[in-house]
Amino acid sequence: MRGNRAAQLGSEAQDKYLPSLSKLHKVCAYAMTEPEYGSDASSLNTVARKVPGGWVLNGRKRWPGNSSFADVLVVLARNTSTNQVNGFIVDGGSPGLKISKIENKVSMRIVQNCDIELENVFVSDDDRLPGANSFQDLVNSLAFSRVMAAWVSIGIAVGVYDACQRYLGERKQFGVPLAAFQLNQEKLVRMLGNIQAMWLLGWRLSKLHSSSKMTIGQASLGKAWITKQARETVALGRELLGGNGIVTDFHVGKAFCDLETVYTYEGSYEVNALIVAREITGISSIRPTTSRL
Amino acid sequence: MRGNRAAQLGSEAQDKYLPSLSKLHKVCAYAMTEPEYGSDASSLNTVARKVPGGWVLNGRKRWPGNSSFADVLVVLARNTSTNQVNGFIVDGGSPGLKISKIENKVSMRIVQNCDIELENVFVSDDDRLPGANSFQDLVNSLAFSRVMAAWVSIGIAVGVYDACQRYLGERKQFGVPLAAFQLNQEKLVRMLGNIQAMWLLGWRLSKLHSSSKMTIGQASLGKAWITKQARETVALGRELLGGNGIVTDFHVGKAFCDLETVYTYEGSYEVNALIVAREITGISSIRPTTSRL
Amino acid sequence: MRGNRAAQLGSEAQDKYLPSLSKLHKVCAYAMTEPEYGSDASSLNTVARKVPGGWVLNGRKRWPGNSSFADVLVVLARNTSTNQVNGFIVDGGSPGLKISKIENKVSMRIVQNCDIELENVFVSDDDRLPGANSFQDLVNSLAFSRVMAAWVSIGIAVGVYDACQRYLGERKQFGVPLAAFQLNQEKLVRMLGNIQAMWLLGWRLSKLHSSSKMTIGQASLGKAWITKQARETVALGRELLGGNGIVTDFHVGKAFCDLETVYTYEGSYEVNALIVAREITGISSIRPTTSRL
Amino acid sequence: MRGNRAAQLGSEAQDKYLPSLSKLHKVCAYAMTEPEYGSDASSLNTVARKVPGGWVLNGRKRWPGNSSFADVLVVLARNTSTNQVNGFIVDGGSPGLKISKIENKVSMRIVQNCDIELENVFVSDDDRLPGANSFQDLVNSLAFSRVMAAWVSIGIAVGVYDACQRYLGERKQFGVPLAAFQLNQEKLVRMLGNIQAMWLLGWRLSKLHSSSKMTIGQASLGKAWITKQARETVALGRELLGGNGIVTDFHVGKAFCDLETVYTYEGSYEVNALIVAREITGISSIRPTTSRL
Repeated sequence: MRGNRAAQLGSEAQDKYLPSLSKLHKVCAYAMTEPEYGSDASSLNTVARKVPGGWVLNGRKRWPGNSSFADVLVVLARNTSTNQVNGFIVDGGSPGLKISKIENKVSMRIVQNCDIELENVFVSDDDRLPGANSFQDLVNSLAFSRVMAAWVSIGIAVGVYDACQRYLGERKQFGVPLAAFQLNQEKLVRMLGNIQAMWLLGWRLSKLHSSSKMTIGQASLGKAWITKQARETVALGRELLGGNGIVTDFHVGKAFCDLETVYTYEGSYEVNALIVAREITGISSIRPTTSRL
Repeated sequence: MRGNRAAQLGSEAQDKYLPSLSKLHKVCAYAMTEPEYGSDASSLNTVARKVPGGWVLNGRKRWPGNSSFADVLVVLARNTSTNQVNGFIVDGGSPGLKISKIENKVSMRIVQNCDIELENVFVSDDDRLPGANSFQDLVNSLAFSRVMAAWVSIGIAVGVYDACQRYLGERKQFGVPLAAFQLNQEKLVRMLGNIQAMWLLGWRLSKLHSSSKMTIGQASLGKAWITKQARETVALGRELLGGNGIVTDFHVGKAFCDLETVYTYEGSYEVNALIVAREITGISSIRPTTSRL
Repeated sequence: MRGNRAAQLGSEAQDKYLPSLSKLHKVCAYAMTEPEYGSDASSLNTVARKVPGGWVLNGRKRWPGNSSFADVLVVLARNTSTNQVNGFIVDGGSPGLKISKIENKVSMRIVQNCDIELENVFVSDDDRLPGANSFQDLVNSLAFSRVMAAWVSIGIAVGVYDACQRYLGERKQFGVPLAAFQLNQEKLVRMLGNIQAMWLLGWRLSKLHSSSKMTIGQASLGKAWITKQARETVALGRELLGGNGIVTDFHVGKAFCDLETVYTYEGSYEVNALIVAREITGISSIRPTTSRL
Repeated sequence: MRGNRAAQLGSEAQDKYLPSLSKLHKVCAYAMTEPEYGSDASSLNTVARKVPGGWVLNGRKRWPGNSSFADVLVVLARNTSTNQVNGFIVDGGSPGLKISKIENKVSMRIVQNCDIELENVFVSDDDRLPGANSFQDLVNSLAFSRVMAAWVSIGIAVGVYDACQRYLGERKQFGVPLAAFQLNQEKLVRMLGNIQAMWLLGWRLSKLHSSSKMTIGQASLGKAWITKQARETVALGRELLGGNGIVTDFHVGKAFCDLETVYTYEGSYEVNALIVAREITGISSIRPTTSRL
């Protein structure tokens, strides 16, 4: 699943974007999800129509992270000739591109998610991703994103554990550290067990990925299971901090909220679970149609 | 547990505060918890020293809701003569009273919780609560607050259920409403079962209370169990809304965060559980001392 | 849902069976489920063919409780003329009826479930239930059975709670009763909260039923939710008893096993949840076909 | 924690028992737990009194597995001179040894647990374990037993997963395999995620053990966390099999019951969790005494 350029969808010429992106001199956003197509991502209906010298894109996107200040966006759109999903590199300042930040987030507030409208946005032929000729071509990169999401949740959970262990040792009630109470101890231990298991599963997943052996289902299982355990873990941390767990000052309250994003993005728990199930049973139940019978 | 004025701690003369408070022309805050005394509330060490014509209060409080704009505060403080906890009505504009809003909350942001410092704050004899002569005198009003907290969580959960049922019916993926998927249906049903049970338990608790039969342990059991179920319920709602569950626009994301406060205030789940256990086993394990043996 | 004879499916003449059954002088078994039709009960394919003076039944049944020693069995079979499910009273000693006890049960061992074969079993016209002309006619009695199943699980859970409270008070470790430990106290309290909620929901359900207002979905919600909580409750009890929880002597180990039957029979948790969902969303997801779209 | 004979408590001469035991020509039982001392194992009060040429043991034991037909038993008893726990090899046919099988087990019925009485049972000097001079000397072997218990639960869970995957594929309802339903798929996936995590944690634990780096707390964490996940896993399997999950024929019902033993023995979940907590917080809350303050 890793490796050569073809698998990464871009052309050699498009490598020109990489140096500035890797140094964070420029920022790139990834625009797949649409207001009406979340879990059902492959049905997206932003369209790309061929015109001389390039493509014209029309449609709407929702959620692309940090797209409000992105220099370039990778936009997925349906090729009107083939009816297949293709990928396009769109300049952040393109005429016809309207980007508005989603307000009122309670989770991952550090990320600026946006609603995007594309109205006759032009993309030159050079900026079409030659390796993205159907949704199927994207599946591997989606799987890799799931591994990354799993690790994000591991990082959050570890941070919460550290904060809790410190807090329980320092905060006293009834004359003794909170760490002295059985009910608190059991929660801390459960958190630690979860984290060790999450970490090992993440490690195994990355080993499979780096040796090009990771299946789509394995990525989904790792993402679904690890973020589920992370969710339990940060909820335990939240309650361990009592009142101080509802402010961001102690890290835990914020992490509790942030984890919700990780649990849901890159495929919700349910979608990932059903992808795994398809791989282990040979039967897909994702789409509610007779096609699965 | 209800009823006559004595049980309500105040004097007849202090009834003068009630008309404007009940019309919300004036706002009252309740200041019990201190930075170092949360679950161990009865150990609070704000002090009240007798002086001619009244009392002088010194100490710190944390969390009193809406105290930043309260006209009056009921402040609990330790009588330096008796070493018992007494109650005092403190004017919001008293010299020596310093109130600063707690920032960075992720839950119940509508409530302005504050850190409070009392430095030689004078309270006249008329504003001491004659019925509050020890922490034990407060126990009944704390129990009643727990019943109210339970109902807050029921209201939040019902609102989340309504929002989810509507959302699942309207939002389509894969060509059908989200309400058509087994995994979503089971969650919605679990939420409904939880809510019916929470509601019935709250109703029973209020019946016991209104007939003056509610024990301290019953109030704690209601608060602990109902808010626990509410927590599960709103978490289910949060995941049912997917990405739209991390913004406040759809009600659910906000409710998910708010519930954390209700789960923890008026006695954390653990403290309330141990209060119940004390009543049903005859053994207290709240304080980690040999006194329980 | 209650009430007159028609609703109860039988004829006036068939009342003759009731006195001896109600005094337990005779035992009746109910034969609906088949080896290949459990959750999909309405597809049962035991058949009843009209012959002069009566009916001839052929097919197989699985699970009917206590059928090994039943004097009469109510057998559901598909009328070969109408293709609808009808009901028949079958004498336990009928030629062609072969009943063999299911061995190796780990749950509800007190009940003798059986595998049944009907090979040209004759039933007289008098013993056909006149009110059972389609599966739909059975739905109300199935709903009532669910209310009863819910109460069985409440009874089991209450028994487990009582046994645990006693055990924790009597059994000492580290010099104090097990009831003195926080971790044990919280479990006992969680059990009590569950039980009060189960009990109230069961009470409400029975009130609805006795006033003929109970819907099919309400019966399923009560059965599903209550038995689910009961399952958690008896598992908590099982662990509270430690090693002594794996023998039947202390009641709890047996109850832990028995509850599994109650959780699954009269409609599994999943089937009941989906019946509720159909009622609250208007969409059935029970059958995996396009008919629901 | 591994390795030389001293660590294994026995003498060189006592190696004579090993060949026949390793070939299962003879069976050995391990008798530590007593009727009144389970979690509080180190307080055991079976006594060993020195007499010329050996020791005389008196006391009672409960639960030793397969002791009804054991050729030899390792019995822990308190040395009346030192008041420390010592270990003794007792011949299964010793005069004064009375062993009665514990009946009515619902879990791990393959193992014959027993109640044992020792009345003036003589053990020669040669059969005292020279390496077991205090309970502390046993701690490492107990930790290793916990690793083994963790692996037992992994094996049980894997067997349940296999049985469920097969069953869901073969058993049809509503015209399709049970494996086609979303609710069943999610359960199967959750089981698989649990198992992979349990397996990896067990593998890591065994690596630490085999390199002599495993701490007592790590063993307890592995045992507690893995068996807890196993318990959830087999309960999911139990419900996936519906009615066929309450008979032993399909493996799963039996495994569901057996797991309860593994969850509780070699230190209950709670005891192991508190051992971990002691290691990560530096505070023991196992004994309810002031010594922890």
